[in-house]
Amino acid sequence: MKILFKNASILLFDKEKILKGFVIVENSVITKVVDGNFSENEKIFDKVIDCENKILMPGFVNAHTHSAMTLFRGIKDDVCLEEWLFDNMLPLESNLANGDVYWGTMLAIAEQVRAGITSMQDMYYGILEIAQAVKKSGFRANICVGVGSVQNNNMLEKSFEENEKDFEELKKLSELIQPTVYSHSIYTQSQSALENAVMFSAKKKCPISIHLSETLKEVGDCMVANGLTPPQYLESLGFLDRNCTIYHGVCMDKEDIELLASYGTNVVSCPSSNLKLGSGIAPLYAVKNAGINIALGTDGAASNNNLDMFKEMFLAATLQKAVLNDSRIFEAKEILEMATKNGAKALNLNLVGEIKEGYKADIILVDTNKPHWQPCNNLISNLVYSAKSSDVCLTMVNGKILYEDEKYYIGENLKTIFENCSKIVARLKKQTNIK
Amino acid sequence: MKILFKNASILLFDKEKILKGFVIVENSVITKVVDGNFSENEKIFDKVIDCENKILMPGFVNAHTHSAMTLFRGIKDDVCLEEWLFDNMLPLESNLANGDVYWGTMLAIAEQVRAGITSMQDMYYGILEIAQAVKKSGFRANICVGVGSVQNNNMLEKSFEENEKDFEELKKLSELIQPTVYSHSIYTQSQSALENAVMFSAKKKCPISIHLSETLKEVGDCMVANGLTPPQYLESLGFLDRNCTIYHGVCMDKEDIELLASYGTNVVSCPSSNLKLGSGIAPLYAVKNAGINIALGTDGAASNNNLDMFKEMFLAATLQKAVLNDSRIFEAKEILEMATKNGAKALNLNLVGEIKEGYKADIILVDTNKPHWQPCNNLISNLVYSAKSSDVCLTMVNGKILYEDEKYYIGENLKTIFENCSKIVARLKKQTNIK
Repeated sequence: MKILFKNASILLFDKEKILKGFVIVENSVITKVVDGNFSENEKIFDKVIDCENKILMPGFVNAHTHSAMTLFRGIKDDVCLEEWLFDNMLPLESNLANGDVYWGTMLAIAEQVRAGITSMQDMYYGILEIAQAVKKSGFRANICVGVGSVQNNNMLEKSFEENEKDFEELKKLSELIQPTVYSHSIYTQSQSALENAVMFSAKKKCPISIHLSETLKEVGDCMVANGLTPPQYLESLGFLDRNCTIYHGVCMDKEDIELLASYGTNVVSCPSSNLKLGSGIAPLYAVKNAGINIALGTDGAASNNNLDMFKEMFLAATLQKAVLNDSRIFEAKEILEMATKNGAKALNLNLVGEIKEGYKADIILVDTNKPHWQPCNNLISNLVYSAKSSDVCLTMVNGKILYEDEKYYIGENLKTIFENCSKIVARLKKQTNIK
Repeated sequence: MKILFKNASILLFDKEKILKGFVIVENSVITKVVDGNFSENEKIFDKVIDCENKILMPGFVNAHTHSAMTLFRGIKDDVCLEEWLFDNMLPLESNLANGDVYWGTMLAIAEQVRAGITSMQDMYYGILEIAQAVKKSGFRANICVGVGSVQNNNMLEKSFEENEKDFEELKKLSELIQPTVYSHSIYTQSQSALENAVMFSAKKKCPISIHLSETLKEVGDCMVANGLTPPQYLESLGFLDRNCTIYHGVCMDKEDIELLASYGTNVVSCPSSNLKLGSGIAPLYAVKNAGINIALGTDGAASNNNLDMFKEMFLAATLQKAVLNDSRIFEAKEILEMATKNGAKALNLNLVGEIKEGYKADIILVDTNKPHWQPCNNLISNLVYSAKSSDVCLTMVNGKILYEDEKYYIGENLKTIFENCSKIVARLKKQTNIK
């Protein structure tokens, strides 16, 4: 399979400006990125895509999500975290049955490919069902094996050995699936569960990740229980030695940030979730200045309430400007890097996140021929400040088109996905008496 | 002209839930809003619109914008306010020529009808050109006559008498155009210019508006110069007696807010602009609790950088949750009211901003048959937290459809608008040596 993208405005991070040129994809790989017009024989290509008025750029890496939680989108908003989690999410989740996570994940994949996301780090129950959806759709995913879990539930809780078995199973499934390990958080896991996760990560030689310093309550409780801030506590448990990635990092002081920087820990920021849940605004400018790799994630659609990296980019770019009263903080280009190549780095995705010869063909096209893009004074700036995820008109993962012009190629029909998800939620609501 | 919207999910502010029913529009007015199916003869209608899987709601009222600044979208981002304004915006604006504002306004109207906005309060130079674009397109607008102006420029500066002439001219143009008066701000206008604006407002018996308390610098400078906070200074000049609306209101303390409340002043919040320009986060929760009418605006596309009320709604709903660490602050429904009926109140638009019998037919349809809307657990919540402006599939102003399914009916062709705007900007850049 050989595909030509011609007349494209190509976003390259090592160039000052957008390049006007063409890109060739052979099977799963970008084999040419060239400045200028394509003037040879087009007949050798299986498909030629004219990219006039379109930006060709790397697909977004959604570095933190709980994909099947799309099922719970909008079920309980504008209530306090405890009511949301303990009275609604956990009861719903404890009634999840076989197949539910598959359909929830499929819905999340549909939403993501529509929005130009080409890979995700997914953290949820039922990882073999997640994997089934990822494999069927052709999406790229790190799937996190959860060592220890949020609640005691026979369906959800697995032993160390069962987790190992799952991990090995995932490895064999597809080159687009990479297993990794997480522990949910220091406030839901016992110390021994956290230590188990570190042990698992060491045994499987894979990175580890965790929700951390998300709320002031978490920080305060950790100080009281352990006499340490959450990052210090993680250090004491050996997390930071394991190429660790933390999600959120909203409530961190200078010492916390320096500690994470000294270990090369990645920080995944999920600004819209932090706003909507009332957690706060992460000190991303300080995190950046400490030299930490910052990636962006949407979090689950039950908390923020969609999977849209354009929204996260706008927020990551502007919240620090507002908080620090300085409009110069963060330039559009570095925000685009956070949403793509930095995410690939955090997720250990090799040859992903840039438009470069030899890289995996995770490519999207963004249509600029719309009122909110005009006049096109600055394409890079428009991508961060003006664009919408609906401007994405093509999403390719590993050389395969999964979305193009309102058509989805993810192995399941959109209508079937919607119907199954609605049925699942109706059943769960009935089982739990949640309205 | 008689139009039937059938099978619609209708957003009504006086009902707890979305109503499933039908709406009839006759000429410019909503004549029926009915619970249940339409079962009579459809042949009496000129057009029947099936709204299955669509929400029918009032169009958004964009209560503050500078529409022709779409021309400058993305020209200079991520620089400090002074560099943006004095080195870029003002030189560009001082070279505006006849026709430029018309095309810039047309572009803004195209972007707005695409995004479900049906009316705006517009504040810019060249008001007769704005009016020409508004009239031609069929959009609804309050057009602000600027008494005093930001810069001394023969083309832009007008005398009191010339402004009066413009005001009367606007009144005659169209029932969809309502003239009103503004003074730009206390930091760009002399005290006598501000007093002139109040006098103008009194003479013309119209409300008055002004940018106020947008930045800490403005507040500090006002305290030093006048020994008063900006709201106190406005009071001393008689602004608050004139049914005043202030834009931004980012940097206000408890006394400021109480003062504005005591006069029934409206506050228009523009959260994305305040973030991107590094101004800060408006204390909207305190403003609401003081009983002040809060509306939302996009501000101009040169500062934030698009005209999207869905973006403003998400930010208005979530920023206070984050700042005050309480996810219960603001419910989705009151945010929808800010973006519609409260805006109509602030703009003095009679019978606008709700779906009600006897109201003007400013109606939009929002398509929910998309992955990021599924499963439809809560339509009201989804409108604020999950929806995108691209979900709007029909925009009607005063009974006339201005946008439907990627087609624009605004009196000018989209391609012509884009080309003219690009040409204008190319010329302005050449004249000013701005890149």
